[in-house]
Amino acid sequence: MSVRTPDPYPGWLSDDDLREARNRLPMVYVEAVPVRLDPLGYVNEVGLLLQADDEGNMVRTLVSGRVLYRETIRGALLRHMEKDLGPLALPQLPVSPVPFTVAEYFPSPSQTGLTDERQHAVAMVYVVPVAGECTPRQDALELTWMSPEEVLSPGVQAEFAGGRGSLVRQALAYAGVGR
Amino acid sequence: MSVRTPDPYPGWLSDDDLREARNRLPMVYVEAVPVRLDPLGYVNEVGLLLQADDEGNMVRTLVSGRVLYRETIRGALLRHMEKDLGPLALPQLPVSPVPFTVAEYFPSPSQTGLTDERQHAVAMVYVVPVAGECTPRQDALELTWMSPEEVLSPGVQAEFAGGRGSLVRQALAYAGVGR
Amino acid sequence: MSVRTPDPYPGWLSDDDLREARNRLPMVYVEAVPVRLDPLGYVNEVGLLLQADDEGNMVRTLVSGRVLYRETIRGALLRHMEKDLGPLALPQLPVSPVPFTVAEYFPSPSQTGLTDERQHAVAMVYVVPVAGECTPRQDALELTWMSPEEVLSPGVQAEFAGGRGSLVRQALAYAGVGR
Amino acid sequence: MSVRTPDPYPGWLSDDDLREARNRLPMVYVEAVPVRLDPLGYVNEVGLLLQADDEGNMVRTLVSGRVLYRETIRGALLRHMEKDLGPLALPQLPVSPVPFTVAEYFPSPSQTGLTDERQHAVAMVYVVPVAGECTPRQDALELTWMSPEEVLSPGVQAEFAGGRGSLVRQALAYAGVGR
Repeated sequence: MSVRTPDPYPGWLSDDDLREARNRLPMVYVEAVPVRLDPLGYVNEVGLLLQADDEGNMVRTLVSGRVLYRETIRGALLRHMEKDLGPLALPQLPVSPVPFTVAEYFPSPSQTGLTDERQHAVAMVYVVPVAGECTPRQDALELTWMSPEEVLSPGVQAEFAGGRGSLVRQALAYAGVGR
Repeated sequence: MSVRTPDPYPGWLSDDDLREARNRLPMVYVEAVPVRLDPLGYVNEVGLLLQADDEGNMVRTLVSGRVLYRETIRGALLRHMEKDLGPLALPQLPVSPVPFTVAEYFPSPSQTGLTDERQHAVAMVYVVPVAGECTPRQDALELTWMSPEEVLSPGVQAEFAGGRGSLVRQALAYAGVGR
Repeated sequence: MSVRTPDPYPGWLSDDDLREARNRLPMVYVEAVPVRLDPLGYVNEVGLLLQADDEGNMVRTLVSGRVLYRETIRGALLRHMEKDLGPLALPQLPVSPVPFTVAEYFPSPSQTGLTDERQHAVAMVYVVPVAGECTPRQDALELTWMSPEEVLSPGVQAEFAGGRGSLVRQALAYAGVGR
Repeated sequence: MSVRTPDPYPGWLSDDDLREARNRLPMVYVEAVPVRLDPLGYVNEVGLLLQADDEGNMVRTLVSGRVLYRETIRGALLRHMEKDLGPLALPQLPVSPVPFTVAEYFPSPSQTGLTDERQHAVAMVYVVPVAGECTPRQDALELTWMSPEEVLSPGVQAEFAGGRGSLVRQALAYAGVGR
């Protein structure tokens, strides 16, 4: 189940070569949980993207995308934030490159609980506060801002793709909410 | 050597009682390394306070102060940022309460390398980006913004009080600079 | 509700003075989630203590205790591990003093969701693997080893004191399980 | 300058295809700083590998290697620890998959300060305590255990390949030593 957009910058790989590489090498990804903070830094709201997967089901997902050849992690993070939330989101990129978790997606079920049928992906996952105006891109039907309680509710948790609900729970635990 | 200001909110302790407690219990502190970031989140500048210590020597120090009874860590962090950098500094408090390091100050030399002759203090230390205008308080003679390279230079490192030069080096390592 | 043992080393404070200080200053604590790991570092089991609280209810709790005046965090962590799990537990103390979370307990309900009616405590919380034989101390009725799934079950989560169930969930998220 | 051994498990890629992929995609790596700890968890010694680089110069390096297709990070970390330190090293793999830093190596000089002329590699870097007997593999001339002070000395720092001296400094800062 793929919920991500075609990569607009395929690096130096043709589509065929990229498909080939995805069957042979782990891909480097970044993911971001967009949040709105109050002045003390507490999470007020979490931004979730709603997209159609390959079978046309609507699923929740995060800001997510590949790190390109010779691209820094920060560069990839900013590029995907802008791609998914628009140019006016004013994301506050993290001070440190250390992610709050490393998510390992495998093409078949594994002990990590995270799956991506297209590939083996290793994603560094960050919580990214946004201060500006978000305008989700065309192929994301909706960007929804929810309270931490809503995000943690069983109904919303059931809507995530590929096991990402657990990443959002972990992001909130890291931020000290959801206790 | 004390380089910090008298606490304007002594909680429910008189000055005598606070002095007494400092000889018997570890004190909870927060410290912050103020930084200015570029749009990708790289550290452009580090803000250092210049103060006179008890003997009148000029020393470099960080934003630092006690956590009061019933005060949250975030509340203390914001209070001390405003006290030391003014009300218009626009600090971006961290998303997570997890510090980049825990600094243990002892009244006499120890294996932590950090000393505070007044007390045993356990400080949670954060890197805090500031976006606004900084106006250091009266008793800090100066707030100086330096490049990471300047901060790491032997000359500046020699000016820190209580071993805090190592905390700043660690802050920059955590941020991925100073390599 | 107090579920912790009387402190065998009250530092330089009499019981009266300690009670007094607890009404005026935040106390520095360490807490530990004991775990057994498989050879790859995955959490196999979590160790929970079962104790009677002040009203005689049985509650689940963690290894927990105060940091004494002039004691290092590592020293306090080892002392409390030995006190609660016995001298042969062979705990692997963490390489870094950075906790996976900072837990703020307040005497009345707060936004942290953690309470301790005796005091305001700031606890640095660690996951600590144990490799040896555990023999819980007298006043802990039981040390129970559970799988992560059992620990996360609603039944066990309901048995924790002071909101600590959320700390254990966060510990497992940090360890990459419970997804 | 390559200081790492030929990969004994090239996954499903031929040597030619792997060389090709290295020119087009970032590679996922793990790196480890082996340490010996005292009972309180303080770093006593750091293990450094001494190897010949492509020009025959002797350089210091870390345990390092690729994550293979469908291999977990923990699996890769254990495999490379065993490859570089032998089967009896008894490494204590980290409880959490969160690295202490993410190292970005580029084929040409960049703002990260880390270089690998063969490829763009994104390495998750861990501090890994070892409790057993280490027997470095054939092509590493030597495994040397040094005190943190020796590792931080300018002489040893000058011997590292690709900027890794900064990673070791950061590892020690993370562990709370080198202050």
